[in-house]
Amino acid sequence: MAAKAVAVIAGVGPGTGASIARRFAKSYAVALLARNPDNYQPIVREISSSGGHAVGISTDVTDEKSVKGAFTEITKTFPGAPLAAAIYNVGGGLVRKPFLELSGQEFEAGFASNGLGAFHFSQAAIPLLLKGLNLEYPPTLIFTGATASLKGSARLAPFTTGKFALRALSQSLAREFGPQGIHVSHVIVDGIIDIERTKQIHFDAPDAKLDPNSIADTYWYLHSQPRTTFTQEIDLRPYVEKW
Amino acid sequence: MAAKAVAVIAGVGPGTGASIARRFAKSYAVALLARNPDNYQPIVREISSSGGHAVGISTDVTDEKSVKGAFTEITKTFPGAPLAAAIYNVGGGLVRKPFLELSGQEFEAGFASNGLGAFHFSQAAIPLLLKGLNLEYPPTLIFTGATASLKGSARLAPFTTGKFALRALSQSLAREFGPQGIHVSHVIVDGIIDIERTKQIHFDAPDAKLDPNSIADTYWYLHSQPRTTFTQEIDLRPYVEKW
Amino acid sequence: MAAKAVAVIAGVGPGTGASIARRFAKSYAVALLARNPDNYQPIVREISSSGGHAVGISTDVTDEKSVKGAFTEITKTFPGAPLAAAIYNVGGGLVRKPFLELSGQEFEAGFASNGLGAFHFSQAAIPLLLKGLNLEYPPTLIFTGATASLKGSARLAPFTTGKFALRALSQSLAREFGPQGIHVSHVIVDGIIDIERTKQIHFDAPDAKLDPNSIADTYWYLHSQPRTTFTQEIDLRPYVEKW
Amino acid sequence: MAAKAVAVIAGVGPGTGASIARRFAKSYAVALLARNPDNYQPIVREISSSGGHAVGISTDVTDEKSVKGAFTEITKTFPGAPLAAAIYNVGGGLVRKPFLELSGQEFEAGFASNGLGAFHFSQAAIPLLLKGLNLEYPPTLIFTGATASLKGSARLAPFTTGKFALRALSQSLAREFGPQGIHVSHVIVDGIIDIERTKQIHFDAPDAKLDPNSIADTYWYLHSQPRTTFTQEIDLRPYVEKW
Repeated sequence: MAAKAVAVIAGVGPGTGASIARRFAKSYAVALLARNPDNYQPIVREISSSGGHAVGISTDVTDEKSVKGAFTEITKTFPGAPLAAAIYNVGGGLVRKPFLELSGQEFEAGFASNGLGAFHFSQAAIPLLLKGLNLEYPPTLIFTGATASLKGSARLAPFTTGKFALRALSQSLAREFGPQGIHVSHVIVDGIIDIERTKQIHFDAPDAKLDPNSIADTYWYLHSQPRTTFTQEIDLRPYVEKW
Repeated sequence: MAAKAVAVIAGVGPGTGASIARRFAKSYAVALLARNPDNYQPIVREISSSGGHAVGISTDVTDEKSVKGAFTEITKTFPGAPLAAAIYNVGGGLVRKPFLELSGQEFEAGFASNGLGAFHFSQAAIPLLLKGLNLEYPPTLIFTGATASLKGSARLAPFTTGKFALRALSQSLAREFGPQGIHVSHVIVDGIIDIERTKQIHFDAPDAKLDPNSIADTYWYLHSQPRTTFTQEIDLRPYVEKW
Repeated sequence: MAAKAVAVIAGVGPGTGASIARRFAKSYAVALLARNPDNYQPIVREISSSGGHAVGISTDVTDEKSVKGAFTEITKTFPGAPLAAAIYNVGGGLVRKPFLELSGQEFEAGFASNGLGAFHFSQAAIPLLLKGLNLEYPPTLIFTGATASLKGSARLAPFTTGKFALRALSQSLAREFGPQGIHVSHVIVDGIIDIERTKQIHFDAPDAKLDPNSIADTYWYLHSQPRTTFTQEIDLRPYVEKW
Repeated sequence: MAAKAVAVIAGVGPGTGASIARRFAKSYAVALLARNPDNYQPIVREISSSGGHAVGISTDVTDEKSVKGAFTEITKTFPGAPLAAAIYNVGGGLVRKPFLELSGQEFEAGFASNGLGAFHFSQAAIPLLLKGLNLEYPPTLIFTGATASLKGSARLAPFTTGKFALRALSQSLAREFGPQGIHVSHVIVDGIIDIERTKQIHFDAPDAKLDPNSIADTYWYLHSQPRTTFTQEIDLRPYVEKW
């Protein structure tokens, strides 16, 4: 039996990451990366109990060895399985603070999790994606961006520098690996995502938060695009969002 | 019997417009606008003969009366049918010429077909879209952009001024009518579309032109997004395209 | 005696246009275009009475014949004088209105004054600028943009489509005529300009409006750049402006 | 005697940095930072021998302690002198390489010198700039960007991620400290700079490289803008540059 293709998702928590995992698990075995097992265990269990294949791997994306170890574990867990999609959904560094009160460590954290982590993740994923050129859909590498990918707001230096850097990386990779058949996309998520952690944020209008399942549908849609017609950048926001 | 919802598509020729018409005709009755009946007749026949509902209407989008007349005909042809989607896929004004050799008429043509036509089309479509808020998907207004929507190239003043203006219009309408529930999107088509007219353009790589059916799939995908998670702008280009 | 070089400024009123005229009149004879003589007469008198050379010409920039007539008059008034700078500072079309209440005429007005007018002006000015390549500074063509050049706000369709189109034109001309030695620049003026007409707008902070003389200094600075180091786009805003 | 105000320039070598130093030394004492004394010694000697005040300080901008040490030395060298301008002209990380061949260290180098260094520099400079609000010109913080600040090219991941991050930082600081009276600007230098190191690059056209003295003039012009009329971003490129 041919091994089922795999999708790897970094940055899996109870929100968007879990929705993306659920969506891609309909077609692929999924490897879910997060630093804290508490973040991936519920969705690993959910997918497994409903007949899917999922594995969670504790990973610190800012640490090259940790990322390499995770991908070694993926290839061991799913031997011979090609990589169909790699999704980097890591946030981090989202501290709002007067600039002069930031520590160097706080500043670097934004780049570490958004930029450096994406670098390690891409270096590990791309060689495997290049082996997946004969799958149903072009192998896909997707990065999660934010409002801060396009606009450097006051008191948000760590996060916005990290997200700008991530966007640059996504463009550089798209231009290098697109012609080799890998679909590299950058998704700008602009607004509050409707998850447990944002329950206390209320809007006058209904449906004013991004539905994580719809975000996941977009990621799947991007994955399904043929190489004649790739999207490099797409934005997503609630209908009432100001921008 | 409840009337089937309608999608109206302006700028229907043998390429992208026909593909969009075919895609939306799977779910809706379609009204196809083009100046020259030769452009819409084949696709109207094709849709009708395969069990769909299609009507073609000769329309000059740069002429307010002509556009109003077309929408009057649509409401007569499909009485009581709500408008689910309105797609403005008109090009025009694509003349490459040294700036000093352009006539005023040539310059204005870019704005007339891309900007002014989109204005007339939107003014006629939006009131009908606002009546379609209870359909399966949020009523959707999509505009077709191009590389020239983002970059003003040399010797391309008429087209690029028209496409920049169209992008501005799409943003202005998204900000005004998004909160009222209408999904306004702008699609940047960057590359050569694989149609009859571009047959003579050859690339070394295979699949180097945009597949119009994939473009149409993207338009449908945009239409299917829920209001929690609207896309305002998306780009589409072949994997080998330089940008 | 060699004829003094000329600067032509379209869109001269009591605000930025007058300041630009005053600044360029220090080095050049100036031709000041406005539809209404009331707009240029005070500054023509002021420049003339302080020893400068200024002529005002009633011009409708949206009318090709009117623009050509103005340039004919300029070459007659200053025979043999080379053109050193041409500045298009025309606004117009700034109506804020719900989109569905706009007339076609109101919509077109934004493009007419910002886009079409700039086309006529550029076509008349560029041949003369190309004769000024041996002057002290590279011949310069500057366009005045606005916040609406970059962002399509709600209820601002006429103005924002016009300003987006103008920005496209400035890029297209810079790419065509830059290599021929003409400096084409686009200035994004973002904020309220401190002129008579805005006296009633108050801010808590001092100096919260753009000083038209400082805007004029920027235009002159752009003009003075050597061809090794041209600026195509620059923004200007008060220190307290949100953006 | 009142202490002469100081300008500090990080990233001083034989090219743009030296030109900026020379330009600002006409009005201020200058503190010139570079890792290698060979880079600042010639210009320090030149300025001193022509009657100006200049000090060179060996500084590793990626090291917080080194940057703090440099600013301590500046305040000791010029006691009581207010800081009029701080210019971050550091490049670094400009390696062109297939992405999969990059080491983690090479990747991080782009952010370290462009992003992290700018953070340390800004944290040290801003408190001193805030004391200079009564000087002739608003205290100014300028960052040197590049083509790679706007476009993520293939095989350029380290540099482009660093430059995107720097641009984000410049925007974030402009939005936080602009209203406090500090002028924060970002200069996009697009093209080859005409320095010793680029002598071997030839163009068919004359004047096809950026003149570093003209770049310096632009920095001074930005510094001289009043707070009513600040520029946040400006581009600079030779007249024949493609973009």
